[in-house]
Amino acid sequence: MTRAADVLPTFPAAISLDKDLLVRCIEECITCAQACTGCADADLSEKMVDELRKCIRVCLDCADVCEATARVLTRQTSYDANVTRAVVQACNQVCKSCGDECERHAAMHEHCRICAEECRRCEQVCRELLALIG
Amino acid sequence: MTRAADVLPTFPAAISLDKDLLVRCIEECITCAQACTGCADADLSEKMVDELRKCIRVCLDCADVCEATARVLTRQTSYDANVTRAVVQACNQVCKSCGDECERHAAMHEHCRICAEECRRCEQVCRELLALIG
Amino acid sequence: MTRAADVLPTFPAAISLDKDLLVRCIEECITCAQACTGCADADLSEKMVDELRKCIRVCLDCADVCEATARVLTRQTSYDANVTRAVVQACNQVCKSCGDECERHAAMHEHCRICAEECRRCEQVCRELLALIG
Amino acid sequence: MTRAADVLPTFPAAISLDKDLLVRCIEECITCAQACTGCADADLSEKMVDELRKCIRVCLDCADVCEATARVLTRQTSYDANVTRAVVQACNQVCKSCGDECERHAAMHEHCRICAEECRRCEQVCRELLALIG
Repeated sequence: MTRAADVLPTFPAAISLDKDLLVRCIEECITCAQACTGCADADLSEKMVDELRKCIRVCLDCADVCEATARVLTRQTSYDANVTRAVVQACNQVCKSCGDECERHAAMHEHCRICAEECRRCEQVCRELLALIG
Repeated sequence: MTRAADVLPTFPAAISLDKDLLVRCIEECITCAQACTGCADADLSEKMVDELRKCIRVCLDCADVCEATARVLTRQTSYDANVTRAVVQACNQVCKSCGDECERHAAMHEHCRICAEECRRCEQVCRELLALIG
Repeated sequence: MTRAADVLPTFPAAISLDKDLLVRCIEECITCAQACTGCADADLSEKMVDELRKCIRVCLDCADVCEATARVLTRQTSYDANVTRAVVQACNQVCKSCGDECERHAAMHEHCRICAEECRRCEQVCRELLALIG
Repeated sequence: MTRAADVLPTFPAAISLDKDLLVRCIEECITCAQACTGCADADLSEKMVDELRKCIRVCLDCADVCEATARVLTRQTSYDANVTRAVVQACNQVCKSCGDECERHAAMHEHCRICAEECRRCEQVCRELLALIG
């Protein structure tokens, strides 16, 4: 059902980056955004919400940045390495910060454990893509 | 790898709507947004871009509305049926309009065929969810 | 400094709706989204955050829907009244729900008072635009 | 009518960055996003749309990144300098790329002229904020 994998090969021109890595990065960004939106909302309904303020905040940031990154990476028209690099660097950083924070609550809250794991995966694939862009 | 299915059951309170349908609707919204962002960009790189203006425009709208809808549906804290209904109605309509337009180019462009199909799926599950909300 | 007012008249074709009302509606959507993002974050830093859960949730929804609405309204290429109507109806509803909730905290929190006021303005101009679309 | 200026001082804790600069940066991000969404759509309706493909693409990216940046900057709960820096760096870069592209069409298209100007302003204030974050 993953559309990044389906639509990307139909692009009517050359694709600048490694297609498999690109698809993986887009999909992790989308999945991470979804995990973060869900985690922020689950935090908000926890009894101990006042201990989860930082977690909510960084999850909201991470969802916003991951969604913007997925969109930028999906677009292949007139590829600009400077834009892609800067956006993926931002995504890598916010996934790191969000993963660090969610990890602190992972033993307590299953949504934080899932979200932390997803942030790590997205952070990792962003780093692989950055290595490729140079 | 689908996060909607993973995070939703960790929500620390009751979930107002049928969980399976909700997960399906969130996932179709995310998938449809992704297909639309990719289709708009592929259109933009087609030789005959001037015949695809309407397609690009409605794909951009559909991506924006589907992403907002996925976020609203993912949130379970203090469920508000009026908000959910109005947002899913908007999503249903923009998926219908986008599916109609992409279908017109489906024989010519594979990205339009995939996008039209995805819009139909998202339109359909939005309708099922609306029947439930009443 | 308002760009909606500056860019809209440069559109290279006819604009389907009343230009002044359209500009006002775009600007209120943008302003309301900004107020809601700020209010949700200010709520999150209040001592009594556990009484503001619903306020945070609906502010996040309202920011997402208002931003999507501003984008749809800004686009003039191949205007589709059905899409515009459905999206503005959703925006009108979420602004109503968010205004109602923020109003409940307006005496206590200045950010809620400002946000409620802004939601009312955006709800109102959405209604005016809907009357025009028919 | 600018809400960033109104809501920010109501934040119930200390604000980490210079408040005036922060407000200016949020407002330029929002204004730039709006200019870019409008410019991409106006491009799409120009007769010579096939010469404006790159302009549309980078305007779409710039709108997405500026909106995400405005949201991250608006949030003051649990400020994280690493996240803010990376996101503002990305915004600075995409505004530079978008400003460069729109400038090439500024003599021909008034929407490109306005958008280029706005990108320059947003790029500049991002740079000022980056100098402050260190």
